[in-house]
This record gives sequence, structure tokens and C-alpha cells, in this order.
Amino acid sequence: MPQPEISIFPILGLPEIVPGCQLSSVLAEAVRRSDLVLKDFDILVIAHKVISKAEGRIVQLNDVEPSKVATIWAEKSGKDARLVELSLREASRIVRMERGVLITETRHGFVCANSGVDTSNVAPGCAVLLPEDPDRSAEELRKSLNEEFKVRLGVVVSDTFGRPWRGGIVNVAIGVAGFDPLTDYRGFPDSFGKKMRASVVASADELAGAAEMVMGKTRAVPAVIIRGFSWPTGLSGTGKKLLRPATEDLFR
Amino acid sequence: MPQPEISIFPILGLPEIVPGCQLSSVLAEAVRRSDLVLKDFDILVIAHKVISKAEGRIVQLNDVEPSKVATIWAEKSGKDARLVELSLREASRIVRMERGVLITETRHGFVCANSGVDTSNVAPGCAVLLPEDPDRSAEELRKSLNEEFKVRLGVVVSDTFGRPWRGGIVNVAIGVAGFDPLTDYRGFPDSFGKKMRASVVASADELAGAAEMVMGKTRAVPAVIIRGFSWPTGLSGTGKKLLRPATEDLFR
Repeated sequence: MPQPEISIFPILGLPEIVPGCQLSSVLAEAVRRSDLVLKDFDILVIAHKVISKAEGRIVQLNDVEPSKVATIWAEKSGKDARLVELSLREASRIVRMERGVLITETRHGFVCANSGVDTSNVAPGCAVLLPEDPDRSAEELRKSLNEEFKVRLGVVVSDTFGRPWRGGIVNVAIGVAGFDPLTDYRGFPDSFGKKMRASVVASADELAGAAEMVMGKTRAVPAVIIRGFSWPTGLSGTGKKLLRPATEDLFR
Repeated sequence: MPQPEISIFPILGLPEIVPGCQLSSVLAEAVRRSDLVLKDFDILVIAHKVISKAEGRIVQLNDVEPSKVATIWAEKSGKDARLVELSLREASRIVRMERGVLITETRHGFVCANSGVDTSNVAPGCAVLLPEDPDRSAEELRKSLNEEFKVRLGVVVSDTFGRPWRGGIVNVAIGVAGFDPLTDYRGFPDSFGKKMRASVVASADELAGAAEMVMGKTRAVPAVIIRGFSWPTGLSGTGKKLLRPATEDLFR
């Protein structure tokens, strides 16, 4: 049996993350306890939720005073008005608000449901917001873990997003550090020697999706290591590169 | 070092596929030559292009007579009028036709650029169309390979699609056989014991994306085996389940 080209390992035994927790230390300890030996070019994919928790991006719903529009929309769509209020506060623009669905553009530029505000896997009565700057969070983790383990890691901060046209949600990259999130095949020859034209692959999103299969939703495995991904040559990591510029987007 | 939870193996040494080729036999031979020992619940992800080729869904561009609208649009957008013509013929509806981008809904219900018509990794002067019925193609492969290797496989037929809001293309599932392409976490408890509400994960798309990391675009590895994916209990496989119903889609 040959070796797999890509392998995905769970980082097991992470404790529940609380505000102020030194996430990189907790991760490093869990990596050691999992007997994982990190290698150069491994990719750490981590669910944004543990980062948001560590960074204190948790809100007590009882502290939220819903605005009028949030109250009206919540009533119409059967949602919690305080969650709607948070979603609106986290938005820079409302993309769609109809048929019970609230899609916004967040301050980071992500287009997603409810500005990414979520109540799953967080204490009852609380909501968790997206990290302030997922690229910065990714970069901080990358630096700390690279130093700790003397390796060169890539880091992806992920969240599950819905999308138009296709059903279900998929895990995508909202923060990236250490590698280029896009793999650009343009100009390379295809198998017939013709130059490829339109092939820029959102590799960081594929890494996030692959990681979700190991994370699951109910298993409390918010971080995984992916080994064997071919790093693009560019090393500039920012999830912003995964945002389609509004001028090139026919569906804003 | 622990075992990986998910492993992805390339199926190496597939020859160039030509119309009429018995794809399942060619695949079985390549699996054997790759020393891969297939196991129950392995997932085969295969690029639609080799299926289209085997099924004869290749068109000589010189045989295509562009219509007037195809000619005008091709001129405006700098495209080959015969490719535009094929894209229009493969469409059941035009979703957007502006700023040089042609997005259609195909007869299958996929919303994608140019109805999936593509010229990369196909002989010069030719274009390849999507398979007539990717679910049927997946099911045929599944049956043949299950019999051949006495295993229970899942099969995903994939293509790379662009998407609104996010840059780059990702590999997605356009045909599925043997397993439920959606993993439904609704009603399951989260890590705090609260019932999950909105979590239906498009696992088949995550499998396709993960596979792309091994397929690449230029390496001529159109088929991979993914081991370790947790099969949903439902076994009804159809890529159609990944299509968001128009009534629930705010972006058609």
C-alpha cells in the first residue's frame, strides 16, 4: 500500500477555550499530547470559534438591546432579536434581507449569513462573533507555533458558510497565514501542453473544507493538521485574497 | 505518530481516456498498478472530464456553427464564438451575461460559468462538455468497482466551479453515488448539549475540494481515493441534493 499524498490529523484534547486564554500554548500542548510531530509545510486549520473565544469575541445576549429594525425582522423571521441586532452591528452592508434570510457583508468583507454571528458550540445565553482580524489571528498562531516547534507551518482560520446555488454549508478560510491561499495555474501547460487560462484555485478554501471532515460539528475537534499540501510558491498569506472584488462579482 | 484520520491517495498511471473506453476497467487496472488496496467506505473522486471523454462528450470546434448572439457576445468578451455557442446550447437558462462573464444554469441544474464547457486538458481544437447525467456515471462506476474489488465505495464526480463573493475556483461534486452528499447535524447536540439548528454540511463538496489538492490541474491525476470519511447514515446518493432549490436561493 502506498503512502497517502495528503493526511489529516485531529488535534485531540483541546480544553474549552475561554477569553484571555493563550491559545498557542494550549494548542502546542494538545499537539504534544496527540503525539503529533509537526513538519515543515504542515497546515494548521483551526475553527474561528476557538479564536473568537480566546479573543473575547463572545457576547452575553442579555446585554444586547435590539433596535427597532432588528425587532421587526426577528418577529417576521422567527429569530432572536438580540442575535439579529448583533448581526446588523457586525455588518458593513446588508446584501439580502428576505424570506427569513439575512445575508450581510462583514467589516472584513465576507459575505455570509448573519455576519457570522453564531450560537452553536458556545455557552447557553451567549453568541460568538467572528474574530476582529482573522488574518492577524492566523499570523500570531503561525509565529508562536513555528517558534515552539521549529517548523514552517501554514495556518488557516475557518468558518462554515452557505453559498448561493448550492445546498449545505462548507468550511472556508476566513484567515490565512504563511502561504498563498490561491494556487495560480494560469500560464502553466495542461496535459496537452496548452496554456491554462482560467485556473486560479482557492486552495485555502479546499484545505478548510477538507479539515471540516475531521472536525465534524459535534466532536469538539476544532483544530487539525493537514500534511502533504503542495504549497504555492508565493508566501503572502491573507484571507483577503479569497474575497472576490465587488467589481468582478455579479451577485452582490 | 498517530494514524491520520483522513488519507488521500492518487490513482496514478491512468492513460488518456478516449470515447468508448471502458472507464471502470481502466480505473481498476490503475488502482491495481498503484498498489492501492480499496476498503469499504473509501470514496473515489473522479474529475468529470475523464467521464465526459469516455462518454464521448467531446466536440470538434470546427463542427460548431455559432449563432448570432454567440458571435456578438464572443466579440464583446474576447471569447471563441464556437465555445460561446456550445455554452448556450448546454444551458437551460442564462443567469448572467455581463462584464465578459457568462453564467448559466445547465440542464442538470448546476449554476456555473459557460455551462461547464471547457478546453483545458482536452486535445487542441476540441471542447469537453459536462457528462449527460453525472449521477448515473457515478453510479455505474460505483457498481462496477464494488463488484470488481468486493468493497462498498462511494463515488463523487467533480468539476471546478467559481462562486459569487469568493475568489478562485473550487472543486465541487456534480455527481454522487453510494452515500448521502449532505451531512445533517440538525438536532444533534453541540459541545454544550444544545441542539444544532442550521448545520447541514455539503460533505460531497468538501470531498471534491480535498481531492483537488491531490489532482492538481497539471499533473494528469484525474482520480483519487479518500479514506476515513465518516459516511452519513443515509445512502441515497445524488448530486441533485447539492442544488439549492430556486425558492430558497436569493441569488438566481
